[in-house]
Amino acid sequence: MLLLQANVDDCSPEWMAHAMERLLEAGANDVHFIPVTMKKSRPGILVQVLCYRSRLEALKTILFQETTTFGIRYFPAACHRLARQFLTVKTAWGEVPVKMGYHRGTRVQCSPEYAVCARLAKEAGVSVKEVHQEALYLARQQLRAGE
Amino acid sequence: MLLLQANVDDCSPEWMAHAMERLLEAGANDVHFIPVTMKKSRPGILVQVLCYRSRLEALKTILFQETTTFGIRYFPAACHRLARQFLTVKTAWGEVPVKMGYHRGTRVQCSPEYAVCARLAKEAGVSVKEVHQEALYLARQQLRAGE
Amino acid sequence: MLLLQANVDDCSPEWMAHAMERLLEAGANDVHFIPVTMKKSRPGILVQVLCYRSRLEALKTILFQETTTFGIRYFPAACHRLARQFLTVKTAWGEVPVKMGYHRGTRVQCSPEYAVCARLAKEAGVSVKEVHQEALYLARQQLRAGE
Amino acid sequence: MLLLQANVDDCSPEWMAHAMERLLEAGANDVHFIPVTMKKSRPGILVQVLCYRSRLEALKTILFQETTTFGIRYFPAACHRLARQFLTVKTAWGEVPVKMGYHRGTRVQCSPEYAVCARLAKEAGVSVKEVHQEALYLARQQLRAGE
Amino acid sequence: MLLLQANVDDCSPEWMAHAMERLLEAGANDVHFIPVTMKKSRPGILVQVLCYRSRLEALKTILFQETTTFGIRYFPAACHRLARQFLTVKTAWGEVPVKMGYHRGTRVQCSPEYAVCARLAKEAGVSVKEVHQEALYLARQQLRAGE
Amino acid sequence: MLLLQANVDDCSPEWMAHAMERLLEAGANDVHFIPVTMKKSRPGILVQVLCYRSRLEALKTILFQETTTFGIRYFPAACHRLARQFLTVKTAWGEVPVKMGYHRGTRVQCSPEYAVCARLAKEAGVSVKEVHQEALYLARQQLRAGE
Repeated sequence: MLLLQANVDDCSPEWMAHAMERLLEAGANDVHFIPVTMKKSRPGILVQVLCYRSRLEALKTILFQETTTFGIRYFPAACHRLARQFLTVKTAWGEVPVKMGYHRGTRVQCSPEYAVCARLAKEAGVSVKEVHQEALYLARQQLRAGE
Repeated sequence: MLLLQANVDDCSPEWMAHAMERLLEAGANDVHFIPVTMKKSRPGILVQVLCYRSRLEALKTILFQETTTFGIRYFPAACHRLARQFLTVKTAWGEVPVKMGYHRGTRVQCSPEYAVCARLAKEAGVSVKEVHQEALYLARQQLRAGE
Repeated sequence: MLLLQANVDDCSPEWMAHAMERLLEAGANDVHFIPVTMKKSRPGILVQVLCYRSRLEALKTILFQETTTFGIRYFPAACHRLARQFLTVKTAWGEVPVKMGYHRGTRVQCSPEYAVCARLAKEAGVSVKEVHQEALYLARQQLRAGE
Repeated sequence: MLLLQANVDDCSPEWMAHAMERLLEAGANDVHFIPVTMKKSRPGILVQVLCYRSRLEALKTILFQETTTFGIRYFPAACHRLARQFLTVKTAWGEVPVKMGYHRGTRVQCSPEYAVCARLAKEAGVSVKEVHQEALYLARQQLRAGE
Repeated sequence: MLLLQANVDDCSPEWMAHAMERLLEAGANDVHFIPVTMKKSRPGILVQVLCYRSRLEALKTILFQETTTFGIRYFPAACHRLARQFLTVKTAWGEVPVKMGYHRGTRVQCSPEYAVCARLAKEAGVSVKEVHQEALYLARQQLRAGE
Repeated sequence: MLLLQANVDDCSPEWMAHAMERLLEAGANDVHFIPVTMKKSRPGILVQVLCYRSRLEALKTILFQETTTFGIRYFPAACHRLARQFLTVKTAWGEVPVKMGYHRGTRVQCSPEYAVCARLAKEAGVSVKEVHQEALYLARQQLRAGE
């Protein structure tokens, strides 16, 4: 994988947000903005994009089109991604998929899908915290029963 | 108006983003997150919400429901908002409203509506920067012609 | 309550951390550091301290002693703190107090004590995430049974 | 004194830096930029300006002219500034004024003037750290001799 | 090219700004400061310097001299810089050079020189926003006429 | 050496602080948190860990256990660390070790041990600034006498 970086000191934050959206749609694995202090007291932004090498050209083009940067640099990165499994839990507000991550055969992550929790929370008029904690609760129960 | 503040050091950023959305829907004038260094090396968040006094109770309730904070503080703020006028410009990709701000009778802001620029840019497959700069260009032409 | 602010552009971060510790010991309700971009490209710090008015003089003295600031400003703040209750849950690694917050008679917060979770996690060689999620799980069970 | 705030989510960091310079020239006591996360993933800026009430109108005008904000809010602040005295020390590279701050009759600050240290450091081709630490060293010697 | 990093948790922000200036004078392509939360609640700074390999030794020396760091790390970076062309536009306040960037034969950037805009704005007593937008406007007119 | 990175957008800052502590205990050379703006307005954290390659597996395991991340990336880094020497100074409050750093045979750093200064300051009820500056003063005297 590659980590792309571009410094931006003359670009509206609104445009940056649009660039983020387009980069993600075009296959970036992650995009985030780091606040930085630049020369001449400019409160600029360091854009970081994580992607497969095969997406490099497409993502560079978007960065040049949508931001005001004149240069992009990139670094090759080794990556370790957890093996994943899913289960589904039934909350009072609807079903929620839960993503689990395994490291050397041991479950280390157990993460209810945020987007589903947020949708159910909105529909039911409860907080996303409530739905998320309940889904986590049920997932733990289910995993414990299966062990 | 009021500026509300809550410190959060034990809340998932995902939930914070959901809280922002709900606060804006419930009438907050502005919501933003400030990164802070807290005690015991916690990389926490200071939430700031700007709102009319009439929205205070509703927004406090959302903050308590959607984040993990146990306390909210608030400060009365005097506000100066610019008088506003709108014009519309016709770009090659569609019409864009342009918001102008006046301070003591002089125009100081001239701002194409970002959401419209972004939609047109997406539809036409051009960058939002391109649409935004063109809209600004046309607004200046129109204002100059009218002076 | 009061919110104190001091800008620091010529002080070692090490000293700042020491100041935070002393301020908390002397009765500050909260202390946090906000990163800012200052004049002449200085990457400074805005210190914020929340305290009761009765602590003002003691905390100002600490700020002047431990940081390099020449001025402190402060703002009166209205505060809304949740009513609190505690329960205790028995996890496999030991007992954990859980703090609950009530807003208009409804429970909105349910927060296992971090310091206890962290101590138990260390002693047992498990992650704090594991202990914290288990405590939350048990608290929910207990609350549900009692409703 | 007053603390002014403006949120900026569509303004080039270059312009912001220019606004800072003009605000300071027009009598602001302090200007700094805080990085914030805004709605729709915008990496915006919260501008804070500290000033006397007498400068309010002039500084608001500059903020409206030089940034893209449509609104400014402000808060009255109580301030505590240290009583100040100066002494001068003779380093190997030239004289440096040292500013001292007194809190309740006790010296709590002792701060060589940065701008002078930086100029001397440049002229002599040494580091500003070297000049600053030497000036501090000499100031402490001088104060000790006088006590 | 190389990306240099140094962590600083015991250095005055004033000195950091001086280091930035010297690094840029000594040939660094870019220098910026990233705010970080370090161990023991220290609000530190991560300095990043982008430079050609030929400048490595000179810039390391400046970092060691001007900051308090005991270690510097660096990463080789691939870089993609846009091909550049310049044109000049005549605004009401004076001439402004405009830098254009080309990606695969298409113009993607069009950027009036900030330093010139700022100087003209100061001389004429208008905002840099005004001069910059006018220069952009004229550059677009000129480019359109030539197409 | 290696620089590890993990993005966290769904993890309590309290847990992050615990992860930092465990990473340092397990041999990380440095750990710090960078505030970032992520997709969907999440105010997330980029964790960076600097370590020897021999610690990679142990530190990855801690990151997976203690945070909620599903992926870690890492980059090989060249490092330049200063040669170090120590001296001890006797302040009025006790002895303080002072670490000196040498670059090409020239002393460029002279840094009193913060932890010792902080302990002495606490015991004596003076500020750490006072103890630190005194230790620096005495170290400079001692070095000068020896030259």
